[in-house]
Amino acid sequence: MSSTFGTLFRISTFGESHGGGVGVVIDGCPPRMSLDESDLQFDLDRRRPGQSRLTTQRNEADHARILSGVFGGFTTGTPIAVMVENVDHNSGAYDHLRDVYRPSHADFTYDAKYGIRNWHGGGRSSARETIGRVAAGAIARKLLKLTCDIEVLAWVSSIGSIESEVDLDSVDLTRIEADPTRCPDSEAAALMTEAIDRARHDGDSLGGVVTCVARRVPAGMGEPVFDKLDADLAGALMSLPAAKGVEIGSGFAGTKMTGLSHNDPFAMVDGRVRTLTNMSGGIQGGISNGEDIVTKVAFKPTATISSEQRTVTRDSRNTTLSAHGRHDPCVLPRAVPMVEAMVLLVLADHWMRQRAIDVLPPLPKLP
Amino acid sequence: MSSTFGTLFRISTFGESHGGGVGVVIDGCPPRMSLDESDLQFDLDRRRPGQSRLTTQRNEADHARILSGVFGGFTTGTPIAVMVENVDHNSGAYDHLRDVYRPSHADFTYDAKYGIRNWHGGGRSSARETIGRVAAGAIARKLLKLTCDIEVLAWVSSIGSIESEVDLDSVDLTRIEADPTRCPDSEAAALMTEAIDRARHDGDSLGGVVTCVARRVPAGMGEPVFDKLDADLAGALMSLPAAKGVEIGSGFAGTKMTGLSHNDPFAMVDGRVRTLTNMSGGIQGGISNGEDIVTKVAFKPTATISSEQRTVTRDSRNTTLSAHGRHDPCVLPRAVPMVEAMVLLVLADHWMRQRAIDVLPPLPKLP
Amino acid sequence: MSSTFGTLFRISTFGESHGGGVGVVIDGCPPRMSLDESDLQFDLDRRRPGQSRLTTQRNEADHARILSGVFGGFTTGTPIAVMVENVDHNSGAYDHLRDVYRPSHADFTYDAKYGIRNWHGGGRSSARETIGRVAAGAIARKLLKLTCDIEVLAWVSSIGSIESEVDLDSVDLTRIEADPTRCPDSEAAALMTEAIDRARHDGDSLGGVVTCVARRVPAGMGEPVFDKLDADLAGALMSLPAAKGVEIGSGFAGTKMTGLSHNDPFAMVDGRVRTLTNMSGGIQGGISNGEDIVTKVAFKPTATISSEQRTVTRDSRNTTLSAHGRHDPCVLPRAVPMVEAMVLLVLADHWMRQRAIDVLPPLPKLP
Amino acid sequence: MSSTFGTLFRISTFGESHGGGVGVVIDGCPPRMSLDESDLQFDLDRRRPGQSRLTTQRNEADHARILSGVFGGFTTGTPIAVMVENVDHNSGAYDHLRDVYRPSHADFTYDAKYGIRNWHGGGRSSARETIGRVAAGAIARKLLKLTCDIEVLAWVSSIGSIESEVDLDSVDLTRIEADPTRCPDSEAAALMTEAIDRARHDGDSLGGVVTCVARRVPAGMGEPVFDKLDADLAGALMSLPAAKGVEIGSGFAGTKMTGLSHNDPFAMVDGRVRTLTNMSGGIQGGISNGEDIVTKVAFKPTATISSEQRTVTRDSRNTTLSAHGRHDPCVLPRAVPMVEAMVLLVLADHWMRQRAIDVLPPLPKLP
Repeated sequence: MSSTFGTLFRISTFGESHGGGVGVVIDGCPPRMSLDESDLQFDLDRRRPGQSRLTTQRNEADHARILSGVFGGFTTGTPIAVMVENVDHNSGAYDHLRDVYRPSHADFTYDAKYGIRNWHGGGRSSARETIGRVAAGAIARKLLKLTCDIEVLAWVSSIGSIESEVDLDSVDLTRIEADPTRCPDSEAAALMTEAIDRARHDGDSLGGVVTCVARRVPAGMGEPVFDKLDADLAGALMSLPAAKGVEIGSGFAGTKMTGLSHNDPFAMVDGRVRTLTNMSGGIQGGISNGEDIVTKVAFKPTATISSEQRTVTRDSRNTTLSAHGRHDPCVLPRAVPMVEAMVLLVLADHWMRQRAIDVLPPLPKLP
Repeated sequence: MSSTFGTLFRISTFGESHGGGVGVVIDGCPPRMSLDESDLQFDLDRRRPGQSRLTTQRNEADHARILSGVFGGFTTGTPIAVMVENVDHNSGAYDHLRDVYRPSHADFTYDAKYGIRNWHGGGRSSARETIGRVAAGAIARKLLKLTCDIEVLAWVSSIGSIESEVDLDSVDLTRIEADPTRCPDSEAAALMTEAIDRARHDGDSLGGVVTCVARRVPAGMGEPVFDKLDADLAGALMSLPAAKGVEIGSGFAGTKMTGLSHNDPFAMVDGRVRTLTNMSGGIQGGISNGEDIVTKVAFKPTATISSEQRTVTRDSRNTTLSAHGRHDPCVLPRAVPMVEAMVLLVLADHWMRQRAIDVLPPLPKLP
Repeated sequence: MSSTFGTLFRISTFGESHGGGVGVVIDGCPPRMSLDESDLQFDLDRRRPGQSRLTTQRNEADHARILSGVFGGFTTGTPIAVMVENVDHNSGAYDHLRDVYRPSHADFTYDAKYGIRNWHGGGRSSARETIGRVAAGAIARKLLKLTCDIEVLAWVSSIGSIESEVDLDSVDLTRIEADPTRCPDSEAAALMTEAIDRARHDGDSLGGVVTCVARRVPAGMGEPVFDKLDADLAGALMSLPAAKGVEIGSGFAGTKMTGLSHNDPFAMVDGRVRTLTNMSGGIQGGISNGEDIVTKVAFKPTATISSEQRTVTRDSRNTTLSAHGRHDPCVLPRAVPMVEAMVLLVLADHWMRQRAIDVLPPLPKLP
Repeated sequence: MSSTFGTLFRISTFGESHGGGVGVVIDGCPPRMSLDESDLQFDLDRRRPGQSRLTTQRNEADHARILSGVFGGFTTGTPIAVMVENVDHNSGAYDHLRDVYRPSHADFTYDAKYGIRNWHGGGRSSARETIGRVAAGAIARKLLKLTCDIEVLAWVSSIGSIESEVDLDSVDLTRIEADPTRCPDSEAAALMTEAIDRARHDGDSLGGVVTCVARRVPAGMGEPVFDKLDADLAGALMSLPAAKGVEIGSGFAGTKMTGLSHNDPFAMVDGRVRTLTNMSGGIQGGISNGEDIVTKVAFKPTATISSEQRTVTRDSRNTTLSAHGRHDPCVLPRAVPMVEAMVLLVLADHWMRQRAIDVLPPLPKLP
């Protein structure tokens, strides 16, 4: 019991990398929103393998089919089931993994937990599961755009030791999509491309950081104390494959500052309460303050590498393993739409939750 | 709707810093566990203010009273309500905060969300709310100790720029509690003490990092894909006041490594599947692998400082504010039991969830 | 994990009949609603024992104390904890129940489930637990009154074989409260009083039916397919102590009608879509249709009787038991506010849920 | 947000009567259970239309396809997605329903709630949605059979005024399936068949009652106070299309008894604590007591009838409507597997929940 996410805008994903298909059921999407399959395809295409020479060569069209919940081009308020068939079955390619645990994969832990493991390409632990998240995220994106003009944008901010410089205020989708790395700093992007090529050549892999900004989020979203906006974001983002760290605003660097420099002073700007800095990353006390919400997610280097590694078999013998077959030397470019999807899903859910409690008139005189 | 945490071992906290009291209802604690109020007091004492000269001078005994769910010294399986009365009311001390938003506090966002704010000492956003979490965590600690000998231990690993060196394998409670900083590296602890004193003197404040290790967690805990063990830990830890970042295992530093060095090789050790390194931090694919679970939490510098800062009033005027009254220049020592509590609560919940699905006999022959 | 109810207007009750106290935490009540303890007392007084000679002589004031969530006379949107101390401890009265299972009580099943049982007056299975529900229901009542003028009214419609005749459209609180039976048909009420007196004299007990009507519920509340309004009402009402049956609208009697007579014809009345009959009980397809919501709850005869009955001991010996001490020969009059509370809680939750999805403009042209 | 059911054994259904298909995602099924599509087909065939001349002539094979969660013939512990394609599209048959509300259907209420309605054959409110429930119920059935030999059996006990006599202890599947009415009393079944034929001829319809017994349910299942076993059963059963009432054990008839006759005396039988009668219907204090769990569900007469009825249009004009096309004059025979499915789903969930809390050793000496 674990593949369900959200309180009001709730999704349930299903499916493994090989088998009938993967998908998602979105339960709670408001009715009367125009929606068709093309709304999902842009984000699915950004997620899919084979989209550039930087990513795995497994080439799947990942065409989304909406099975329910839409009528006459509009959502009906009933569950929206989205399915993507698995078409590129080459499960024979995984026979050598039947009895051996790939290091830093989920092979051993799935066996430890379930006593059975779908060893065809990662099974449920495959990043292919995120298709459902990205499809649902695209629907959340449309809802938030329509209702409050929220924009969520992520990009690759570092790969390995290559850091980028990106202006959070001006970065846009065009800049991000301009390079297959999804790093909008073109100099850094070039270095990243080189590094990924080298890693592939070396049978090695790279990790990195994705930064995400959410703009025009109304102040007041987030539900203290356990469903704080930052808590839900952290949980959502850490649930992505290969994620090892999450920061909101100043993150770990903020621990080295002092209160005087870290506190965000308030000031009236254009008649609105604004903060003059944004160390808080748009969230204070677990609630959005109207500034941009800024998060960072650390992704470890891809676990699948072609170099030989020590490992053990299911029947407890030491052995070695070299991956063959298709794999990404660096997942970061494909992680961008996944990060956006999780942020969008959290925001859609909290936006609806805030609607539900904001029902009584303002107090004439504040206590 | 937001003050409930957990699926099977579920807690609901309530209360504000001023008012009748704070507390927690624990729903789902297994029956037949010996429990009395003294079991909660050790952790509550580590959390309470006034425990050392490093922390706020607000001195409250924080005596926990168990109202229900225990009979004849044993849990009955029914909800355990724990309440701590608020005794140190000096709410007049907060009159100057009635109409002004403290920078990087939750004052503005609570108003934006709720249209009303309890301005007595932070109200619900006060760290006093964590009393309920710590009390519940103490119960989870006892359950996990009894059933599977899990031990959860946290400590202050850095304050500001002062980093400590701590051996994850040997650190123990005695070492941690030996110094009021809760940093088990005594040289670093001395520097930290000095830095905290200086910050207090300067009307400034400090942040830092708490590291936590969970030992002897059985392999197999965690529920992919959204209730992965690391996702639930990240969400739980980010819900703590002042938290701005969470790492599992290698965290952000791991993004600078390559797959070859980051992957944790498996090997048979004493008849058990072990990893030779622990970059994964004890979690792979969202499921515990039997190694120590290692997390880090970044806490920002305390927002309350006595230096003057720019801010605005509730009626939209620019102004300045200097905090007076009691406050911690550094929350890190008191955050230690809070971090432990959240980790314990996540583990207790997942341990019970794993019990619920592990019901069928092993497969005679693995597919 | 079981003492939590509701999705957005969520309550958690705690407490046993003897011990520190009983109470409830309401999480999700909208902010800015005026609230103080007197708002809860009317319904608590209707629920409490000792209110008339018809009910148990155990006399407890059941004074509600609000511990949190209210500031300056208004709800703050944070959890509202309500506590009622247990004052009338006479737990010695229960010593004879320590080792024996009262027939048709929860004694045996609590032991079977938990392996431990609080044998002081029913412990958690005592109807005293419903104090928390009734307190929360009073808050829901105020919210629904303020926001959409919903009125929920229940009464005793039968006791044993004594049936009443009550006009659903005109019955009001004054008529219901006019007689200690809470049966607004005064002839039936007189017969019921007589029957209860006789049952008490005979060491026997009586059951009956409570009918409840909810007026002015807007059309559109209820969430197909599992949180249909009727499904949630049925679950909520069946969770009351001693409930054995629930009907919506025509209920079991409707099964003997044919479609032609049972279908509720639609017609335009005063510019509104109305049904000319109300066999549906105000709910169609799990969603309110704007007509009065009518439910009935069957309560079995009180299990506690002073006549001698066969039973067994905890150590598996056959024995007999005669209850002594205070008990109701008929719970029906006190069940009335409990039924209202559960209906109110379901409606408040669904009203908020409907708010959360009704966010997009009407479709210009219906598909 | 409403199409999800269950806490640990959790299902999410999706789909409308017309469109891509209907289905269910089962999240939380324990791993290592043998499962294939044939396990689902028996119950789906009992539910499908066109299975006998008594039911609607819409003839759909309802072949279930398992998309995920099964590997090598065993469940993997990951979500099991089951899909049934919609093959018998004749949506043109519904054109006349586009602008008119069928009396006692969900047409008006779906419009009132969602502002949009899929008018093709009932859309989401169609009983076709129960395919997902029945498929999931079949999986729950297998789990409960394997782990604790629980058997759940339902049958038609009355149609209109025709009552059957059925011995609860000896009734079995063969007897139930022997007649298309699914009434195991053959004399009553003959009368029911006649009555259904007559209703069809008259353009009218019939309702009735389904009785369900669950055998060998271990004592101790159910989670007071809101997830009591009877409360969850009542909610689950009332969520079925056309359900208007639910009884546990003695139900409404029990309200006419007195405590002396209604209480179930305990006695030691074959070394086990048993009750000598079963007015409680196997549940006391919301927890199973080891006796047979007996529930009854009232289903109203089918709303779709071919006789002319008064109604209104979407644009608020009075009109009349006569249904044409395929429909059941009596849903009772097909409701039998739906009732079983809901009872099975509740039991599977509670069985797993009880596993999760029953973790500590028995108390040496009971308090």
